[in-house]
Amino acid sequence: MTDQNERIDYITKNLQIIQSEDVFSFSMDAVLLARFAWVPITQGSIVDLCSGNGVIPLVLSTRSRVPITGVEIQPRLKDMADRSIHLNHLSAQIQCIEADVRETTAPPAQADLVTCNPPYFAAAGETEYHNNPHFDAARHERNGTLQDIVKAASRMVKQKGKVAMVLRPERFLELVHLYQQYGIEPKRAKWIHPLADRPANILLLEGIKAGRPGLTIEPPLIVYDDQRQYTKEFQRYYEGSD
Amino acid sequence: MTDQNERIDYITKNLQIIQSEDVFSFSMDAVLLARFAWVPITQGSIVDLCSGNGVIPLVLSTRSRVPITGVEIQPRLKDMADRSIHLNHLSAQIQCIEADVRETTAPPAQADLVTCNPPYFAAAGETEYHNNPHFDAARHERNGTLQDIVKAASRMVKQKGKVAMVLRPERFLELVHLYQQYGIEPKRAKWIHPLADRPANILLLEGIKAGRPGLTIEPPLIVYDDQRQYTKEFQRYYEGSD
Repeated sequence: MTDQNERIDYITKNLQIIQSEDVFSFSMDAVLLARFAWVPITQGSIVDLCSGNGVIPLVLSTRSRVPITGVEIQPRLKDMADRSIHLNHLSAQIQCIEADVRETTAPPAQADLVTCNPPYFAAAGETEYHNNPHFDAARHERNGTLQDIVKAASRMVKQKGKVAMVLRPERFLELVHLYQQYGIEPKRAKWIHPLADRPANILLLEGIKAGRPGLTIEPPLIVYDDQRQYTKEFQRYYEGSD
Repeated sequence: MTDQNERIDYITKNLQIIQSEDVFSFSMDAVLLARFAWVPITQGSIVDLCSGNGVIPLVLSTRSRVPITGVEIQPRLKDMADRSIHLNHLSAQIQCIEADVRETTAPPAQADLVTCNPPYFAAAGETEYHNNPHFDAARHERNGTLQDIVKAASRMVKQKGKVAMVLRPERFLELVHLYQQYGIEPKRAKWIHPLADRPANILLLEGIKAGRPGLTIEPPLIVYDDQRQYTKEFQRYYEGSD
């Protein structure tokens, strides 16, 4: 199951991850989501959908002691996640299951938190996305649409539990509508801007199942300063040292 | 029509305004909206709803040469606006009319831009707002609900024209739904944060009538630095010197 391009990278100082440019490398987005999400600390459970090589469960394990389940449809990625979990001695806390979010038979309404960094369908570029909805739909449906994912998250999370996702800002309103459609009230949004004078390029959004309306826009996060170095705020947020 | 507490203030260096603490003082919000909105420069027209003492038309006049109409229901405020317009020698560009946005008989689909800083219904505090929808509704309906305002804006703006509003972030999702309900696609949002590490307390939102989906989150604006002085970015934005 391994390939020659596999390597072990550090997510942060004490956390290693197996990845491969051929298959999947974790992104900054996933780490930011794992920092952003509210987490149960000692009681309850967490589910991460579209878990890839397990980067979100790995980072969440530094913030919580509850069981974390990653759900990943691709056996190749699930295998990498399993090996990363083992590598970090986290097998007692994290398990990864190979499953389709559309068919997950996990017991409903149990998780305190469901996270997801959904695929951005990068192969269907922005132009195709806007010009060819059929092509886009096909891309989506290979592994579940955003709607499938939100529906699955809503089914798995308990009443008053949290659903946290990272997405491109272009899909913000779509995600808000889907959250509300499936009974998840948007409660916290955070916008990530590559530079202080640029539009946001990452959205973090957390909702509460059956929550009361009221969306808070958290302090923005600027990734690079004008010297193109990471800002102190970004480093702090990303490393989780605050 | 004047009262003893009336005074002449400066909005910015070259722009004066008549106001009174007894009746109405312009807020930072209104000026930010007048800076944020896309404006037609030489051709077309602008309408400002709930215009109060005319602060938005006054600031917009520094950015555009097209006719601007302020719509205000309260004669006392309309009168102050008229006198401020005269004071700044802007009678040729700005007129203020006394009218109810729910009944405005202005020709439909003519404005290139409709702006509005709707009343925040401050007398109905946040608690009342959440706990007593009837009380809140009554407050709203005295001078038109947010829905009435968006409906009026949608009627007045031409196809592909802009509607720009300033609001408290708590009502962001409500405003998005209303925009979409009345055919205005949200296109640009900007969040104002009092401090870099605080949630947003002002939302600026611009939509396009019959526009294509795609919301851009503009660079955030931070009002105060950690010395509680205005940030350079804020001063630049507010003064309109960029």
